[in-house]
Amino acid sequence: MPPPPHDRPLPETERTRHRRLREQGSLDRADLDAILAAGFVCHLGVSVDGTLMVVPTVYGSDGSTLYFHGSVASRSLVASPGAAVCVTVTHVDGLVLARSVFEHGVNYRSAMVFGVPRPVTDPDEKLEGLRCLTEQATPGQWDYARRPSRKELAATALLALSLEEASVKVRTGPPDDGDSPDAELPVWAGVLPLHASWGAPEPDPLLTPGIVAPPHVAQRSAVQ
Amino acid sequence: MPPPPHDRPLPETERTRHRRLREQGSLDRADLDAILAAGFVCHLGVSVDGTLMVVPTVYGSDGSTLYFHGSVASRSLVASPGAAVCVTVTHVDGLVLARSVFEHGVNYRSAMVFGVPRPVTDPDEKLEGLRCLTEQATPGQWDYARRPSRKELAATALLALSLEEASVKVRTGPPDDGDSPDAELPVWAGVLPLHASWGAPEPDPLLTPGIVAPPHVAQRSAVQ
Repeated sequence: MPPPPHDRPLPETERTRHRRLREQGSLDRADLDAILAAGFVCHLGVSVDGTLMVVPTVYGSDGSTLYFHGSVASRSLVASPGAAVCVTVTHVDGLVLARSVFEHGVNYRSAMVFGVPRPVTDPDEKLEGLRCLTEQATPGQWDYARRPSRKELAATALLALSLEEASVKVRTGPPDDGDSPDAELPVWAGVLPLHASWGAPEPDPLLTPGIVAPPHVAQRSAVQ
Repeated sequence: MPPPPHDRPLPETERTRHRRLREQGSLDRADLDAILAAGFVCHLGVSVDGTLMVVPTVYGSDGSTLYFHGSVASRSLVASPGAAVCVTVTHVDGLVLARSVFEHGVNYRSAMVFGVPRPVTDPDEKLEGLRCLTEQATPGQWDYARRPSRKELAATALLALSLEEASVKVRTGPPDDGDSPDAELPVWAGVLPLHASWGAPEPDPLLTPGIVAPPHVAQRSAVQ
């Protein structure tokens, strides 16, 4: 499958059209790429035996395909092949505290990807997908840890979802009631930012003495 | 509706039974309460006009009921009243870095709540639900900001979901390959913790000069 054209906006479909809060919607593929690149856990929505489930799972994105572990979704795919899923990646950036409760909100970046996932069966693509997934969470780890054996590879269920159809929403900035009558109230308004940061690496108690954390792990908490 | 009995474990149903990684499942209602209390954004899975969607939205929990904004879900409820949803709250606590890629994982706490949401129409319950939702994100804010007017209340779609049926999963601790043959590899293994923290409050540029952030907002970044 050819990669989606990155010089064109995301297609507006029946599923991705922004019906409300239109100003928060983006059809810019660069926004989608940035949101996906900034995370490593998605929420996978899938119908399993008729029950709608939303499951957190790790993912990797190479710009045109989103790879994710398929243990839960596999059950659905076996039960009803061709079933559509929705994969959502969300970053919460802060609380929007307005003068009135009604205008309160959240600054966030979110991407919803729609489509029918494809089980990855080709060993080479499966290896590439797992590399993508591993590097998404911990850049540098694929060349450092022991790679999957043939047996492990066979035991891993991996799914691929095209990034062709996606809906991006972003909210930034202060609350919206700064020019309303509420602005005369003696109430503080603004944003309380929420940050995610890496802590210091915690060695496995069973770690062989003398092995130190590699730079791509140890330096992460210093960087962010 | 009477609150669920807090001295009994969560009921194990067809939907909440842990089929794999059983050791990560919890039927302890205190775990559910703690996971819900620690967050304010959930991922709502809902079928809208036949399309499965996973939407991030704010929520509040009072221990027996989960309240959430219903703008998206409302469309579904109108189209097909009585439709089931799945609401998932996830906290990502760190990366589990093993000797082998195959054993890599994530430390996390996650709760999935299943049920048919009920539109909140009674003004008193709606006010109470909005208080719950506001206090979940920003404790102290309900008594500080201007509360919803009757008109604003009518314009707010709020849904209530019973916490009777839920699935809780928790993973903590180091990787699992410390006693495997891989432990002889010269590869560092352990956990890279991920922390969420509040930054310093950012005043609205349109804020009336002289109004300072109240203690329940200003002191939050110092506490966490």
